[in-house]
Parts: sequence; C-alpha cells; structure tokens
Amino acid sequence: MKKIINHPEQVVEEMIEGMVLAHPMRLRRVPETRVLVRKDAPVAGKVGLISGGGSGHEPAHAGFVGPGLLDGAVAGEVFTSPTPDQILAAIKAVDSGQGVLLIIKNYSGDVMNFEMAAELAEMEGIDVRQVIVNDDVAVENSTYTTGRRGIAGTVFVHKIAGAMAETGATLDEVERVARKVIQRVRSMGMALTPCTVPAVGKPGFHLGEGEMEIGMGIHGEPGIRRSPLASADEVATVLVDHILQDMPCTAGERVAVLINGLGATPLMELYILNRKVTTLLQDKQLVVVDTIVGEYMTSLEMAGCSVTLLKLDDELEKLLSAAADTVGWKR
Amino acid sequence: MKKIINHPEQVVEEMIEGMVLAHPMRLRRVPETRVLVRKDAPVAGKVGLISGGGSGHEPAHAGFVGPGLLDGAVAGEVFTSPTPDQILAAIKAVDSGQGVLLIIKNYSGDVMNFEMAAELAEMEGIDVRQVIVNDDVAVENSTYTTGRRGIAGTVFVHKIAGAMAETGATLDEVERVARKVIQRVRSMGMALTPCTVPAVGKPGFHLGEGEMEIGMGIHGEPGIRRSPLASADEVATVLVDHILQDMPCTAGERVAVLINGLGATPLMELYILNRKVTTLLQDKQLVVVDTIVGEYMTSLEMAGCSVTLLKLDDELEKLLSAAADTVGWKR
Repeated sequence: MKKIINHPEQVVEEMIEGMVLAHPMRLRRVPETRVLVRKDAPVAGKVGLISGGGSGHEPAHAGFVGPGLLDGAVAGEVFTSPTPDQILAAIKAVDSGQGVLLIIKNYSGDVMNFEMAAELAEMEGIDVRQVIVNDDVAVENSTYTTGRRGIAGTVFVHKIAGAMAETGATLDEVERVARKVIQRVRSMGMALTPCTVPAVGKPGFHLGEGEMEIGMGIHGEPGIRRSPLASADEVATVLVDHILQDMPCTAGERVAVLINGLGATPLMELYILNRKVTTLLQDKQLVVVDTIVGEYMTSLEMAGCSVTLLKLDDELEKLLSAAADTVGWKR
Repeated sequence: MKKIINHPEQVVEEMIEGMVLAHPMRLRRVPETRVLVRKDAPVAGKVGLISGGGSGHEPAHAGFVGPGLLDGAVAGEVFTSPTPDQILAAIKAVDSGQGVLLIIKNYSGDVMNFEMAAELAEMEGIDVRQVIVNDDVAVENSTYTTGRRGIAGTVFVHKIAGAMAETGATLDEVERVARKVIQRVRSMGMALTPCTVPAVGKPGFHLGEGEMEIGMGIHGEPGIRRSPLASADEVATVLVDHILQDMPCTAGERVAVLINGLGATPLMELYILNRKVTTLLQDKQLVVVDTIVGEYMTSLEMAGCSVTLLKLDDELEKLLSAAADTVGWKR
C-alpha cells in the first residue's frame, strides 16, 4: 500500500484537520465530530442542506460545503456510513429554523443512519426531509445497496438543491427540486484498477492487466461485466447507451454532462472520453448545455470514470448555473 | 498500459477536441494548431499571457486559460515542448497590440522553442517578453534542464501575472510582477509511482513497492534520493525543510501554499499532508494566508505530490486573491 498517510486508522481525522487548516475561512468543524459546516452556519432564513457518507470520495462531500451548495457534510470512516449521532450533530449545526434536507446516496448503511438521525432531529423539533439518490443504471441491487446505487449524479442534486436553498426557498421547494433532479439524472461508471482502503491495506478486488470492469460501483462493487480493455470511444459508447436506454431522450432536449474521474485517471483521459460522449449526444440531436470534467465523486486512487447525464428544463438549467463558492465545485 | 484512450499517438489531438467540446463558451482553438485561447482573445487593451509546454500536466496549461489568468496555452506532445510555429500562432492569437508575456517552465526544449517563437513574433512587430520559472529546489540541473526545473509554482506565476494583466497593466508591469513571483516561489515534490507516456507504453521508471523518491521531477526526472516509504508527516517535513533552507522566511512573514497532486494521489492524502505542512509553517510563526489543495500541475497518473511556498507582500496577496474564471483554477 503506497499512500501519503500517517496511521491507516487516522486518515479521516487527519484529513478533516488538514481541510480545516487549508480552508479556515470557508469551513468550520463542529467540535468533537467529523462534521464540517459552512463557516457562517446556520444561515438565517435558509434551509440547511446536509450530505455525507463514507470518506474516500473526496471532494465529496465536504468539498461541496459553501454558499450555493451544501451547508454541511458528515464524514464516515472510509467507505463506511457515518453514525446517526454525527449526522444529528450536522443537522443541528445547520438548522436555522427553516428545516434541513438530507441528500443521501442509496447505500443501506447510509439510508438507515441518516433516517435514524432524521428521527432524532424531528424529536428535537427540527423539520427534516430526506432524498435518496440512485443514479447508477449499471445494476439493480448491489453489495451494499437495495435498489440502484447513488454515485456521481449526486453532485447535481447537491448543486441544484443548494442553489434553490440559497434563493431563500422553503424546505418544500428545496425538496421538490432535489427530487426532480433525482428523477432526471443517470450515471454509469467503469474501472481500470482497484483502490485500497487504508485500514485494510490491500486492494478491494483484482483486475488483470488487460481487463476493465464496466458498471463498477464507487466502492468497487461488481458491475455488469469484466471485459478486455476497450478504447475510450468504446467505453463512451457503452456508458452513454446504457444511460439513454434507461432514460430515453428526444431530439432537442437539453442535458448537462458530468465526466467524473474516480481518483487516478488523468484529466487528459477524461477529455478524450468527453470527446466521444459529446459526439454521441450531438448525433442524437441532444443539446449539451453544460459539461463538467474532473474529479467530483472519487474512489480513493481507483483508475476509472463515470458519465452522468442530467435532463434539464428551464428551472434546473438556471439553478445549475447559479453561483457557488466551494473548493470542490469548480465554477 | 491501462488508459482511457483511443490511439496512443492521438491523445493530445483528441484531448484538445474534448476540451473544446466541453468548454465551448470559454475556449477557442486556433485553427490547425494545438493552441487554445480565451474565447474573446485578443482582449482589447490587455497584455496577452501565454504558457504551455508538453502535455500530460493537465489542468496545466489550457485549464488556466480564461479571464484573470492566461490568454492562451500551447500544448506539445506528451512531455515534449511545443514547436516554435505553434507558440508563434498562440502569440499572434492573443496579441491586442499591448504585447505578450510568455511564461515558460525551465526545460531546455521549452526555453529554446519559446525563445525562437518570441524572435519570430518580434520580427512581426509584436512586443514579446519571456519569464522562466525555476521553482523546484530539489536539484540544480536535471535530465531536461540546465538550472532548476519549473514545476507547480508556475501556477502562481500564471495567476498573479494574469491578475495584473487583467487590470490593464502594461507589459512592463506584468513582466515585473511575474519576475517578482518567480523570485519568491519555491517547490519540491516526491513520487510514489511512475507514469506511462502513452506513445511509449511502459512506465518511465521503476519504484519498488516500499520505495518513494524525494525530489522527483514532473516528467520522472531523478530527485535527491530514493528511500523507504515514509509517513505523510515525514514527507511534509522533508519538503518544507528543503524549501525553507533555500528560501529562509522570518517570523510574521505571509505565505501562500500549494499542495499539488501529481495525478493519482487522492485529495484525502493531500489534505493529510497539508495538516503537517501548515503546522510546520505555523511553528515557524509564518502566516499562511492562502492554501490551495488539488491537482494543478500533474504528471499523467503519477502518484505523488509537491509542496509550493510563495512569499507574499501586499501586491502579490491582492493579485492572488483577484477573481479568475477558468476550469482549472478553482476559486
């Protein structure tokens, strides 16, 4: 295991310390937790937005904390759900009296723990709503998931619900737009190499030198098939085809695209992939309004990528392009 | 070689096509070149800023093209200098009559070709100046370099000269501030794993499972020593010590820090490294005004990092924090 770390058991704690030291004007740590919130949280009159989950997906989720995006992020151990008490602490830290929306990726542990935290918060009189993101079209059920997994499309939910909350919208409205994004977002990924959870010390799976896995999850969960290494154009075609089979789009529809790197894939390769993805979408006469390329939802040092498609309408397009000021969302 | 590419010989061409397809409102390709410029170039009344070099360092350099930063970037083959005719095309595309500054990393091929392009441009009546960045304190001469190498500190030169140019400053002023940054910026890196140039097809060097190399260059050039894998805190200490030995700082001085990932290093590890870097600087009573963590000057899929320190003054601090709108500079 080759990593720039100190103790494998301390990586999450030390990462959080390093983040706060790097961004003291943006992020504040809720004392004695692994919760990072906006420096100015709770923001008066604003619905609070919380996301989180296992660590190892950076910049998700704390990298998206800031004006126009999330109010707080809860960091579990690597690839492990945060506990309900941590999530509760986040909810309480960002609630300004307008209620809190939890944006949860669909993994059984996350769903259970966020739900429990929501119940505890409700008992303290906080209005809490939950939305569950399940954008991965690769498989119906998976290692840690009943139903589809939540992957990089979650970032569009963060961004658009975040922009809505920033306008001063009510909890009802923020929840509505988050659900709308979830209905209209689909993703699929692939992996070239595994990653190593520090506390485990060895790779989570094995892929041969000439092999890749199509549809792999962001914790190394199995995809739909293992196949010989294909070209970027072939990978783009497989991913886009699966997404469009699941969510048909008609000529003239507007979409946003996220070409997401899983951690060890150079930007060069993501742009080469995007070249074909864009061409495929244009061939179907879809209008690509916005393309985002980079690392947004990673899997430690896994090499691979995912493609996400979001069907836009006027409301979503406007919210997607609204200003946001975080270290992880780059525009 | 596991890469998301089509043909190893086509990676630069297809990357550029993918970039323009992703960012059509930001970037424009100069026809029949590998030059990307601001959509609105040349910007009337503004000094033009050009950088570039071999590809494989993305987001450098085209990711830094946009308002407040570069006007254009020239992409050579992977780890290979662009040719003078390409650089000349970039100069001509961004010159608005106010002259052009070339920001060059200190590699012999780059220096020679940018210089030749500058001479050709001068013959066409364009006022061209050049600055050479040599921030890497690891070694005095290297594989492709006479004198010190230019690495991630170059990004601070881009940012600050870019901000100065955006104010409408003269070429003299932009050149002056670029030279000031170069005098006050120092970096040093380390690597855990090698990277593979696509057209070569195999890693550029070998590092054993328990080995790392301190002071390695961004093309895999030798560093100062190969040693057993050390902890993040030890790595931080070695890099910061070398930088401060070369550029002594006194208590109370203000600095900006860049913790740069080389391509395959998770953000988690960069933040763990930053934790110790910040602590070391604070222990010396330096004032860390700004910390940037992420991938800015990469080496394809190399695992490793560099630390850059920039000594600030009022002028540099103001220009560093000025607005910029590019896909690679994230604030």
